[in-house]
Amino acid sequence: MPEFDLINRIARVFGTSARPGDPGCVLGIGDDAALVELEDGWQLAVCVDTLVEGVHFGPDATAGAVGHKSLAVNLSDLAAMGADPAWFLLALTLPGDDPDWVDAFAGGMAGLAGDTGIVLAGGDTTSGPLGITVTAAGRVPRGQALTRAGAKPGDLVYVSGVTGRAALALRALQAGETPDREALAALHTPTPRLALGRALRGIASACIDISDGLAADLGHILECSDVGACLEVERLPSASCFDEMPNESRWSLQLGGGDDYELCFTVAADQAPTLDALQERLGILLTRIGSIRREPGLTVLRRNGKVFDPGIEGYQHFSPSAGGG
Amino acid sequence: MPEFDLINRIARVFGTSARPGDPGCVLGIGDDAALVELEDGWQLAVCVDTLVEGVHFGPDATAGAVGHKSLAVNLSDLAAMGADPAWFLLALTLPGDDPDWVDAFAGGMAGLAGDTGIVLAGGDTTSGPLGITVTAAGRVPRGQALTRAGAKPGDLVYVSGVTGRAALALRALQAGETPDREALAALHTPTPRLALGRALRGIASACIDISDGLAADLGHILECSDVGACLEVERLPSASCFDEMPNESRWSLQLGGGDDYELCFTVAADQAPTLDALQERLGILLTRIGSIRREPGLTVLRRNGKVFDPGIEGYQHFSPSAGGG
Repeated sequence: MPEFDLINRIARVFGTSARPGDPGCVLGIGDDAALVELEDGWQLAVCVDTLVEGVHFGPDATAGAVGHKSLAVNLSDLAAMGADPAWFLLALTLPGDDPDWVDAFAGGMAGLAGDTGIVLAGGDTTSGPLGITVTAAGRVPRGQALTRAGAKPGDLVYVSGVTGRAALALRALQAGETPDREALAALHTPTPRLALGRALRGIASACIDISDGLAADLGHILECSDVGACLEVERLPSASCFDEMPNESRWSLQLGGGDDYELCFTVAADQAPTLDALQERLGILLTRIGSIRREPGLTVLRRNGKVFDPGIEGYQHFSPSAGGG
Repeated sequence: MPEFDLINRIARVFGTSARPGDPGCVLGIGDDAALVELEDGWQLAVCVDTLVEGVHFGPDATAGAVGHKSLAVNLSDLAAMGADPAWFLLALTLPGDDPDWVDAFAGGMAGLAGDTGIVLAGGDTTSGPLGITVTAAGRVPRGQALTRAGAKPGDLVYVSGVTGRAALALRALQAGETPDREALAALHTPTPRLALGRALRGIASACIDISDGLAADLGHILECSDVGACLEVERLPSASCFDEMPNESRWSLQLGGGDDYELCFTVAADQAPTLDALQERLGILLTRIGSIRREPGLTVLRRNGKVFDPGIEGYQHFSPSAGGG
């Protein structure tokens, strides 16, 4: 399929949402570059993530799920910055000529784009091994972006939702078993926590999305903020998909397993009531799992005061050879 | 090589140019997203291009040249919009662990970035088949971007530099011959025409960069502007690398061969003296090669009035199976 046809095909799936006149997007698909604007007093958060077949998704993933996830992982980065989705660019490398795959892929992506209000502003298509690179941009009021660098001793550590489900599904797939339905949805069609990220502006002292695993990603906050943390492992919320798993195994998955795209963030201790209200308002589970301290490093404790060793060193994606995030 | 080491390695090659505080880039590498700003009264031109090994470059291309070209093709898109380079994101997919390749690649890219004043704001690294996706952004005063859509009947068609050299080098490589040095440089380390694009603000009625071939890319201007054009083939400037080639063969390469990253643009007829002065000031060959007319389609004429058939249908990249641009 010639490049021009492919671009038109994708644009058609996105429909009028890919057209000029959208908020922030002055000129969309069809020129050497897209033209975007930014209101005075706002900054743009920009991020890029690549998904490669065999590394970030396996042959079990449907084209629609691949489309959804390629955009979701970037929206999750915007959520972690507290940014409102604005526009994105799609760079698609395709091995062959499969219009049905392209339609389903674009459909999965367009569905999430429509739900979250982000606009396809442009892109590039080429032939080669299947890979998807999405560049996403979101708006945030100047100076209000959530970074990894603001956690202070005494702050509380929170996590949204339930972590470890994507890793549970991946483990089942790799063992040739049928994954739990809810766990598989967490792996293939994660929900970026955009409303939460936006609500945490002015509240969270640091924030990150969990792509590499809770322990590893909290580790990034600790490093950037030059602090340490202590987690209470029994506080990690569970879900029905873990019902038949021993606690120790679950905790390891929940601390080490990536690809959940929940948010991990820190707030000052006096913000606990705000978080309770936020949980109520957004309908998202927000769990206090520990606290920040001055001494560097991450310690995970049992309720009895003993150290819990999750036996992980950061989550690796689909393939053992993967390095990306 | 773990992702974190790879990012740090690349950032180190870029040195302080990859750090926060750069113009327009408030927060650089090391968070969930970069933060960028835009002065009031300006728009951002944003574009993305993927280069895949075996499609856009062959095994003969050095790592440094691949780094240079990956950024250059995007800067060329910014040039075609009349935009000043601001910042870029690098998504790098690497098959293995080769620090020397990474250093040379980043060195080639950092060299061009330094020369053109564009700042590495962030990126993503993953493992997989070698591919490079660069997202680049440039600033342009509101309403002054050059698009493909403004050419009017009576306008003159210009091209910068000498086209066809990259295609000449590619042909030699594919035949197992040693390419002309100047032609090979055009293929591997093209020079984005940024100063020209900037200077054409308020002068050019339409502009495009030549990645798919002069005829095909001028065709995009014609389609977007709803006009046609007539080219005078003898006007195409030659270069020493074509000295031993019959004119007809040269013209075909110059009309059909892509990857030159020159600019093709249109101006009102009374702007010819402005273009002469611009050529003088910038030291870039600017050649009037034809004119825009109302009748749709592109006609290429010999000086004797006969139609010249270049026998091409748009340039295809390195591999015959390539569809990308």
